[in-house]
Amino acid sequence: MASARYDGNRTISVCDTVPVQPSSGEVRIDVSYCGVCGTDMHIFHGAMDARVAPPQIIGHEASGVVAEVGEGVTAVKPGDRVAVRPLFFGGPAAYDRGHSHIGKNLKFIGIDAPGGMQSSWTVPDYTLHRLPESMPMTHGSMIEPAAVACHDVRLGEVAPGETVVVIGGGPIGLLIALVAADKGARVLLSEVNSARRGLAESLGLETIDPRSIDLVGAVTDLTDSAMADCVFEVSGSAQGAEAMTELGCGRGRIVMVAVHPEPKPVNLFRFFWSELRLIGARLYEPQDFNEAIQLAASGKLRLDRLITQITPIGDVQSVFEAIDASPDGVKYLIDCR
Amino acid sequence: MASARYDGNRTISVCDTVPVQPSSGEVRIDVSYCGVCGTDMHIFHGAMDARVAPPQIIGHEASGVVAEVGEGVTAVKPGDRVAVRPLFFGGPAAYDRGHSHIGKNLKFIGIDAPGGMQSSWTVPDYTLHRLPESMPMTHGSMIEPAAVACHDVRLGEVAPGETVVVIGGGPIGLLIALVAADKGARVLLSEVNSARRGLAESLGLETIDPRSIDLVGAVTDLTDSAMADCVFEVSGSAQGAEAMTELGCGRGRIVMVAVHPEPKPVNLFRFFWSELRLIGARLYEPQDFNEAIQLAASGKLRLDRLITQITPIGDVQSVFEAIDASPDGVKYLIDCR
Repeated sequence: MASARYDGNRTISVCDTVPVQPSSGEVRIDVSYCGVCGTDMHIFHGAMDARVAPPQIIGHEASGVVAEVGEGVTAVKPGDRVAVRPLFFGGPAAYDRGHSHIGKNLKFIGIDAPGGMQSSWTVPDYTLHRLPESMPMTHGSMIEPAAVACHDVRLGEVAPGETVVVIGGGPIGLLIALVAADKGARVLLSEVNSARRGLAESLGLETIDPRSIDLVGAVTDLTDSAMADCVFEVSGSAQGAEAMTELGCGRGRIVMVAVHPEPKPVNLFRFFWSELRLIGARLYEPQDFNEAIQLAASGKLRLDRLITQITPIGDVQSVFEAIDASPDGVKYLIDCR
Repeated sequence: MASARYDGNRTISVCDTVPVQPSSGEVRIDVSYCGVCGTDMHIFHGAMDARVAPPQIIGHEASGVVAEVGEGVTAVKPGDRVAVRPLFFGGPAAYDRGHSHIGKNLKFIGIDAPGGMQSSWTVPDYTLHRLPESMPMTHGSMIEPAAVACHDVRLGEVAPGETVVVIGGGPIGLLIALVAADKGARVLLSEVNSARRGLAESLGLETIDPRSIDLVGAVTDLTDSAMADCVFEVSGSAQGAEAMTELGCGRGRIVMVAVHPEPKPVNLFRFFWSELRLIGARLYEPQDFNEAIQLAASGKLRLDRLITQITPIGDVQSVFEAIDASPDGVKYLIDCR
């Protein structure tokens, strides 16, 4: 069977590996598709070599069909179509306060353990969510990023009639915008890339190019100075960290979705003055996967429109190179069948 | 009657002014005591000259006795002992989302309008909270800062058994620590001044000098790595803004109480990684005044112990100079009778 292995030095090689027999509580799935995430790109660039020791099979946005179940597995059976919530829970720590998805002992499958870019993948049964028969397996592989968006919007407590600004229109930003719009919010997506803005507009979203129009001024005008109820910082940029505190209303919420590796200047006075709230949001909980599956099945997430390219696993290296070369793309899927 | 007037140039002069007759909905009170707040010190230093135009009667931490009521006032009657919640609501704005205490049109009495450092003060009836007969009027003048602390602890959702770290042990930090302890939390107060630490310890609080002991290491040890449920940043320092993100547990809350006039570097990654929350907290709502009065009356706030000095209004200039000269002090009261 084929597997895509990060070998260091911007190299993903395709190897022939042996399927792992499922132990007790495990399930082996025949992987259908696996998406390429920004984190996979960081791995490819060598930025996570301290955590990901080559050679390592990567990938964590996968759909598949159950091939074989280990002892004691009752939640799924061979033939079931599934998406994988790629989190190993390593046991609770007092620090976690019961929030296992951000637990100290959490391991992320595809980073800390072999991932989903392989034709056969063995995972714990509790990571699996069944997909409806009607859902294309391409869409199934996008449940993971959609669940990130559902988690972010849930933690942001977006309500009908609210104004929402999403800073950054990559795959996660677009999905957050679509999920927030489904909640009944008016959504403005701020994105510098014109192709991504064009895609967002074709999906019915309002967009703005913050390089040519002042974002704060635009939101002020758009809302008649009432400003935004909820802001999602998905850009990871200093400009995003600066704008996020200027866009919110009184008690406005800011959801921190992006990874900001270095501390950035933040206007703490605005938090005090208008009682803003900053809400960190990472990964997802089971209910977010359930919501993502439901929304994807309803067609509201327009997942077909977010797919830029589908490539057989044999050509995986070319996909990583294409993403590096093309800032216009959104979601690249690897066909692992 | 005497009034203390900011005349610019670090000068507070005492003038003889005429009491203001209460209009409809207003109440004239004979002021008993008025505390000196950090904001009054900023005014004294000229740091708020853009907002406070000299000459201006300042002060906003006042207790008093109702002397005279205007037409239509039924909530209080002459002889009632009261504390003043010094907020004029200037009408709602869409931006406020109903939170009038942080409203766009809010005016703060004692900054934007004549304050309480005068022997007779006329204010809207809705600003008044009745004090129990048993409460000393010195304590009554400390209800305002105590209400700030109640608001901060309420927004921080401090619960019994939680670990709380308060960064900064001035009057507000001490009051937050005492209110949080009353909620059943274990409280650690971080303060650089040894006299303030000594006072806090004599009130039963655990303290730490962050200049001689590593605060993050101490909280790690103290909690066996479980870290703090809630952190109050009351220092306004870069060190405080840096430490606050290192102290919290998974989904830990950080309450931003301090005024940080300039943007400061903040570790946004920690918000993402551990789903931290930053909660801005400013001023108070009526329920916070009610809680502060109840706590003060119960003796739990140990207000007597927080009073550094009581000075007749005639010597008000010396009080501002004494505060500047003495970093050890906590609460200075002006006797306005």
